[in-house]
Amino acid sequence: MKLFMEPRSIALVGVPRDTGQDAKNVLENLLTYGYKGRIYPVNPNCKKILDIETFCNVADLPETPDLAVIMTPQHLVFPLVKDTLEKGIKALVVVAQGFSDSGEEGKLKQSQLVDMVHRAGARLVGPNSFGVANAFLNLNTAFVLTEMERKGVGIICQTGFPFVGFPQMIILGKGLDLGNTGDIDFADGLEYFENDEETRVIILHIEGIKNGRRFMETARRVSRLKPVVALKTGWSKSGEETALSHSGSLVGNDDIYEAVFKQSGILRVQDTEEFIDVCRAFLAFPRLRGRRLAVLTMTMAGGTMAADACEKYSMRLASFTPETLNKLSAIAPPWLKFSNPLDSGAFYFSKTGPVETFRITMEAVLLDPQVDALLIVIPALPFEQRIYAEIAFNLTSRYPDKPVTMWLYASDKTGQVSSHFESTGRILNFGSIDRAVRALSRLADYSEYLDRGVQDGHTGC
Amino acid sequence: MKLFMEPRSIALVGVPRDTGQDAKNVLENLLTYGYKGRIYPVNPNCKKILDIETFCNVADLPETPDLAVIMTPQHLVFPLVKDTLEKGIKALVVVAQGFSDSGEEGKLKQSQLVDMVHRAGARLVGPNSFGVANAFLNLNTAFVLTEMERKGVGIICQTGFPFVGFPQMIILGKGLDLGNTGDIDFADGLEYFENDEETRVIILHIEGIKNGRRFMETARRVSRLKPVVALKTGWSKSGEETALSHSGSLVGNDDIYEAVFKQSGILRVQDTEEFIDVCRAFLAFPRLRGRRLAVLTMTMAGGTMAADACEKYSMRLASFTPETLNKLSAIAPPWLKFSNPLDSGAFYFSKTGPVETFRITMEAVLLDPQVDALLIVIPALPFEQRIYAEIAFNLTSRYPDKPVTMWLYASDKTGQVSSHFESTGRILNFGSIDRAVRALSRLADYSEYLDRGVQDGHTGC
Repeated sequence: MKLFMEPRSIALVGVPRDTGQDAKNVLENLLTYGYKGRIYPVNPNCKKILDIETFCNVADLPETPDLAVIMTPQHLVFPLVKDTLEKGIKALVVVAQGFSDSGEEGKLKQSQLVDMVHRAGARLVGPNSFGVANAFLNLNTAFVLTEMERKGVGIICQTGFPFVGFPQMIILGKGLDLGNTGDIDFADGLEYFENDEETRVIILHIEGIKNGRRFMETARRVSRLKPVVALKTGWSKSGEETALSHSGSLVGNDDIYEAVFKQSGILRVQDTEEFIDVCRAFLAFPRLRGRRLAVLTMTMAGGTMAADACEKYSMRLASFTPETLNKLSAIAPPWLKFSNPLDSGAFYFSKTGPVETFRITMEAVLLDPQVDALLIVIPALPFEQRIYAEIAFNLTSRYPDKPVTMWLYASDKTGQVSSHFESTGRILNFGSIDRAVRALSRLADYSEYLDRGVQDGHTGC
Repeated sequence: MKLFMEPRSIALVGVPRDTGQDAKNVLENLLTYGYKGRIYPVNPNCKKILDIETFCNVADLPETPDLAVIMTPQHLVFPLVKDTLEKGIKALVVVAQGFSDSGEEGKLKQSQLVDMVHRAGARLVGPNSFGVANAFLNLNTAFVLTEMERKGVGIICQTGFPFVGFPQMIILGKGLDLGNTGDIDFADGLEYFENDEETRVIILHIEGIKNGRRFMETARRVSRLKPVVALKTGWSKSGEETALSHSGSLVGNDDIYEAVFKQSGILRVQDTEEFIDVCRAFLAFPRLRGRRLAVLTMTMAGGTMAADACEKYSMRLASFTPETLNKLSAIAPPWLKFSNPLDSGAFYFSKTGPVETFRITMEAVLLDPQVDALLIVIPALPFEQRIYAEIAFNLTSRYPDKPVTMWLYASDKTGQVSSHFESTGRILNFGSIDRAVRALSRLADYSEYLDRGVQDGHTGC
């Protein structure tokens, strides 16, 4: 897998001659990213593309590159794969569609293609794949130019879309697009990320899995080292048909997937938003020790919503210790009956003033041994919130063991206020209270999965 | 209710002397908004605030204002309400907490307060209320300065937070914060919005309702004229306790609410995000004629997700007419087996080129009589998407009868690409495919509710 994920040299077989904004030229993209390895463009019709020496065919290359990306239309794939294998290249990506994604004839072609690759002792990613991405090498073989960040996220998918990122968010560290999963599959990808030091969270976008047993065995092992999060699509009848035509995946009975995920310690998410939320939470937060949530809210409507969300997502409202209650009583307005969720809005009228009140209450709950995580609900008022963000930063630096989530209400169209808080790297703002609580709950699920393994003395769950 | 929602003059009783960023001075806020009516600040300690003549007590005012907002701490409320009623003011907002939100004693105080107001033939909003907002008059009595837009949305809530808006979104046109709902309640608010020409969608944030029968009768009538969307919080056990301490609402059995909403034609949403999504959809889109969705997607992963979402939210993938299929065949790559969801990514390789392909496919499905709504899934690539947005704008202008939703994947951190499309006013981008399909489904729910009433020949459902 290292040849695919960390290639020192790449042949771009059938790279287009056209360059510029509309051309979707992978060579141009790699130059733009600043790919750290050597690039060999192959195109019989030109000697140079973008001033890079271009070869008429693979046989002419001055070395045997680690990886070849075959990016021609479907009818040219076979002869070019043959050339590539004859050159001794052991890792191939085939981009073209029209294989198992396209009926019986395509299915046959795919199996011929895989046989050909295997006979040469090589491996194949695809067909119908964007290939690989590795932000740490400035590498992305997708023909769409995109942004990458060096985050500790490894993505394995059967479609290119995670490669170009999610709205409001780039989470790609490394990516592997299996496409039709003709050869290299999820288990291969998991094994790579298992030992990859740059990857802390593994996320899977699954339409269908072929070798269920190997997948399960691998996932059970890997999920004890790093969280594995899966979005399984194509669970509905029409979704299944769509997936079949798309990646040629037989998606199978969803109950089976549910059982496989559960037994393998894989956290299943419901949609792309939960995918991102959970992934961000694992990247930002320490291991969650329990399900007891403290809520500090400037609007008690948020307190009620947080309480509902706790019930929905199996979290619990923490009971503060007497010590915490004493600290809070000392600054509370005399008429206020308070508990958790804590009405920070009412504390506004305390003698200490809103800013100092925010500091005292947040510190009190961070120190409370009966609290495992925090949710702060606060309006996005640009001027004041800079002060609150600073306080929150100082406190989360001093007490880094508890996840702090937030929901900013009021308009924050530009994301300016949210970025004050998030720039601390220790506080995450979510799209709603529900989403914040849901993400924490998934963290708790994972902690409990790890704990169960320790208790039972085995490595499964 | 007009005295509350469209006051020509307001007494600000107990307005603070302090001004500036931290003061949260309602007088200063009203001047900033440019409130169109007359303002009478009342504060015994000063003659002018911000150069506006200030009165020692309500009795001194040169006229009887339409509305008085009593904004003092709780212990000063009773004498000031007395002054206000003696002046003949018939509409009062009481901002202070510490009434039914604060135990038995507070409950008693609240009932005394309401009695006092009723004996004078006046009405009360609150206590524990932010008051009223009306963007069309540049009016907002909340002490937090916020942004407002003149949208056709009427909000009735029991908490101030919708007044300061939601993240990424200001949807307030008019707002009424019932607070503890001591007197004026949801039914009163609904009756106001029923006949208000500026309000097209009514949204309710409910913790608890007191007079269920009147609420139902009113809602059944109003929901036949305008969509009524409700977020009911406090349905969980701990949420119920929180709501009780917050707005003094007895939230009651959630099954009863579910039945009440259903019988009243109220669309219940699950969280603040769905609240916003559904509200935006009702504002932007024409009435949805059915549940048949066409999906144009640049990534078939999106097609699979859309198919799943259709099953989850009771929408259906449209079957294209033979005429539509012919139009698409004329430009499809020869190897492509296509259907709905339509793989626009594969059409990329068609001879007509991606831009013209986008135009042809989108027009074909908009014209298809077997299609009720569209979902476009497209990457947020800033340069190209400006061209696509223009095409989409022209087409939605020519065929305005079908809602067009979209999900932009890829990074759009600044929201630039999404705003190209949304500036057309006819296309809405959602946070995920699930959310786009869910919003359409709620539109279909409402259409079916209206149709059922017509069939049955009565005005309920």
